[in-house]
Amino acid sequence: MALFTLCLVFLQCLVAITGYPKDFNGKTNFVVLLMDDMGWGDLGVYGEPNRETPNMDQMAAEGVLLPDFYSANPLCSPSRASLLSGRLPIRNGFYTTNMRGRNAYTPQDIMGGIPDYEILLPEILKEHGYRSKIIGKWHLGQQPQYLPHNHGFDEFFGAPNCHFGPYNNKNTPNVPVYKDANMEGIEFIEAQTQKSEPFFLYWAADATHGPMYASKPFLGKSARGLYGDAVIELDYGVGQILSTLKRLGIAEQTLVFFSSDNGAATYAKLEGGSNGPFLCGKETTFEGGMREPTIAWWPGNIPPGKVRFTDLGWEYFVMVLHHFMEHPNHEKRYCINFNACVFVHRPIFYYRGDLLMAVRVGNYKAHLWTWANSLEEFQKGTDFCPGQNVQNMTVRQQEDHSQQPLLFNLAKDYGEKYQIKPNSAEYKSVIPKITAAVKEHLDHLKKGEPQLNYCDDAVMNWAPPGCKEIGQCLPIPPSNKQLCYWPH
Amino acid sequence: MALFTLCLVFLQCLVAITGYPKDFNGKTNFVVLLMDDMGWGDLGVYGEPNRETPNMDQMAAEGVLLPDFYSANPLCSPSRASLLSGRLPIRNGFYTTNMRGRNAYTPQDIMGGIPDYEILLPEILKEHGYRSKIIGKWHLGQQPQYLPHNHGFDEFFGAPNCHFGPYNNKNTPNVPVYKDANMEGIEFIEAQTQKSEPFFLYWAADATHGPMYASKPFLGKSARGLYGDAVIELDYGVGQILSTLKRLGIAEQTLVFFSSDNGAATYAKLEGGSNGPFLCGKETTFEGGMREPTIAWWPGNIPPGKVRFTDLGWEYFVMVLHHFMEHPNHEKRYCINFNACVFVHRPIFYYRGDLLMAVRVGNYKAHLWTWANSLEEFQKGTDFCPGQNVQNMTVRQQEDHSQQPLLFNLAKDYGEKYQIKPNSAEYKSVIPKITAAVKEHLDHLKKGEPQLNYCDDAVMNWAPPGCKEIGQCLPIPPSNKQLCYWPH
Repeated sequence: MALFTLCLVFLQCLVAITGYPKDFNGKTNFVVLLMDDMGWGDLGVYGEPNRETPNMDQMAAEGVLLPDFYSANPLCSPSRASLLSGRLPIRNGFYTTNMRGRNAYTPQDIMGGIPDYEILLPEILKEHGYRSKIIGKWHLGQQPQYLPHNHGFDEFFGAPNCHFGPYNNKNTPNVPVYKDANMEGIEFIEAQTQKSEPFFLYWAADATHGPMYASKPFLGKSARGLYGDAVIELDYGVGQILSTLKRLGIAEQTLVFFSSDNGAATYAKLEGGSNGPFLCGKETTFEGGMREPTIAWWPGNIPPGKVRFTDLGWEYFVMVLHHFMEHPNHEKRYCINFNACVFVHRPIFYYRGDLLMAVRVGNYKAHLWTWANSLEEFQKGTDFCPGQNVQNMTVRQQEDHSQQPLLFNLAKDYGEKYQIKPNSAEYKSVIPKITAAVKEHLDHLKKGEPQLNYCDDAVMNWAPPGCKEIGQCLPIPPSNKQLCYWPH
Repeated sequence: MALFTLCLVFLQCLVAITGYPKDFNGKTNFVVLLMDDMGWGDLGVYGEPNRETPNMDQMAAEGVLLPDFYSANPLCSPSRASLLSGRLPIRNGFYTTNMRGRNAYTPQDIMGGIPDYEILLPEILKEHGYRSKIIGKWHLGQQPQYLPHNHGFDEFFGAPNCHFGPYNNKNTPNVPVYKDANMEGIEFIEAQTQKSEPFFLYWAADATHGPMYASKPFLGKSARGLYGDAVIELDYGVGQILSTLKRLGIAEQTLVFFSSDNGAATYAKLEGGSNGPFLCGKETTFEGGMREPTIAWWPGNIPPGKVRFTDLGWEYFVMVLHHFMEHPNHEKRYCINFNACVFVHRPIFYYRGDLLMAVRVGNYKAHLWTWANSLEEFQKGTDFCPGQNVQNMTVRQQEDHSQQPLLFNLAKDYGEKYQIKPNSAEYKSVIPKITAAVKEHLDHLKKGEPQLNYCDDAVMNWAPPGCKEIGQCLPIPPSNKQLCYWPH
């Protein structure tokens, strides 16, 4: 996000110095390819054994691989709110206080959404003459005041919510579903190129979130089953978008960023993806929950085939974005060049709902709290860590380690299996840095108003556009505001 | 092995047809780069998050990746005996019958070794005019009759055994240790090229087996610690060998095969490697124990950057090798071209000692027996599956499932977490094929005389060459033949 913002600034500086080509008014276009529930281990280039993602792998070969890039949250809505705002969910309000440390998102009956005071990437870009389009899943609130058009996007083709059911149930209105093959951004790219107007395309594909599906040409293509079919379809889409940029001759003016919103849904078992060697998955603050398969691609600007370690997350951008917005002349301090833009090490804060669960500083990660999922849910068959069992980590009730955090070296021990002993010199030298990072974070933290506390059936999408014409508008029930239920 | 044998034959056919360049008498050289205890997940190209193996990754980019290639055993000696003989340990004698299903190898006091009736790859190649050299770890028996010179190798620089201690203990003679930097094969390659005599180099590096070490220039280079330093040193060695082949202009006449002897030693915790997304590691018949990081490289003959699925192991070569040796005119049936040579699907048999634990047919793997390691060893701190826990799989006593095997689809479920239900149609359709494969295997199985049953301190290397000169020969104790102890 701010990555793009700041690199944009950098390019503007470049224009002044070198005389950048006139296309797109000298601006760089931005494309964010955001996968849904795709795991770090789902790409061939990240070690998926079936190697079924030739286009993503090729993107990596032509761009830079970011093996330790993090989402800001292990769940969809909060992660996406951070991506577009550059601010942690605890700041932008995408969390709940109904129960401590519970994940929350935006189902159809949610009352909250992205607050007006959050400045989203397309809003900033608009000031710089960009046109922005979101294709796919919005997920930042479905009431009119929260929809993309009211937060900087010029165009929106997709759905405000997740596509899971129940379908055709008169107690729950339908959510539009667009198969990924229809979610193409090529026409938008072509139109913007013809106009020579800089653009931001936010391609937030609907798959690979459950329930699984793939378009007909991709069904049965994967050795991995339906999940793999969906990955192959997305891989095809990525290939189409990149080849469009090449065909139009605008690859060097377009920075494409590929990532996922959270870890693979390990609880979905064979209908979910792979987090490679990492612990657990979606919904958790272990590495499997928030480390994302990330690639940046920008021919002529990013040298091909490289790997960069960033221990970077959207959280890092918070301060940068703030500095930029509050002190417009400070931008050079943060973005002298692309590398400086991306490769500044900052702590990663792993939140679950309102609870700061873990912190990464350099290669060290300290767990202040640990939790897999509740015993109650586990006994009903939900397991966020199937086949995995690490003492004090994959536990069934929230464990407080804030007085003596569980410490791991993620470079050596990315599986988070071997705790560094609290009486070791290593532990004693590292913990003060962690403590200082946590203190600084909390000292400066201004929590946003929690947006995900209240639900009301009355706010659901009972009467979507077009329902009158087909006589299918459903009656809106009386308002019944109540606390949302967040079991995870 | 037979891979090389048969591709050799193929090239000879090619010579007859196309008039191959005269170098090396028209023969193709073979280099096997065999890692020790390196895991599938230890290479960047196989998803290691720190990406510290640029030369191995480049080898893959220039060659073909084989993501489901298997060793013939989850332990060093039996795996190596299979590599050179093309026959499973149960046939070549590299197993024990002291206790059911126990792994065994060749410590210093072992009485057995590679039997004379086994025809090793260098013996076959010798008949074709090759000169063969082993550099590194032999591990097929240390008594004179078992040493490399008596089994086809013309040159041997390395150690007959593992390098682990005790060192400088008069009750246990030392084993020579050669650091990997000294284990270079470049001089041999240069000398053979100058003579234009075809060669087989078996580079069986000593690292990354414990205890860990790395040469000075590599110490501290890895973010992963000493284990990673050792990997980086090996990666450097691989780079040196491949660049030598290119520099001498003989890359197109040299097939290089990179693999490992077994899975990473997960029990060694942070001093062991990574098996990526697979279950458990060395010593086990789960995927982590036997699936190897494998690359074949042969410029001009193998197209670059490809991936091939083989569900292939040395066991496959058994029949091929036999057919070839017994019926010399049948070779074309098996090796019309390189792809046909490698990409014929055969069952994989996973043995632990004398016990057939599991079988892979196509993408399906059936566990007839499961076992991690004993409760006794586990309670002493040895764990072959740290951080992992799969019901009925990672168990602490041997469980017999031969009447109703535990079935997994390895393409979808390479972590072996989600058993296919025995009452499912899928199970019912697959199991008969598995049963047939097992029956055929057992019907044709002629077990070798077990070589790893007896130990005797008297056979240890008390008086190695040169000990007299330095007055350090140790007295040979009286013979005391007894059953070896195999706890795993």
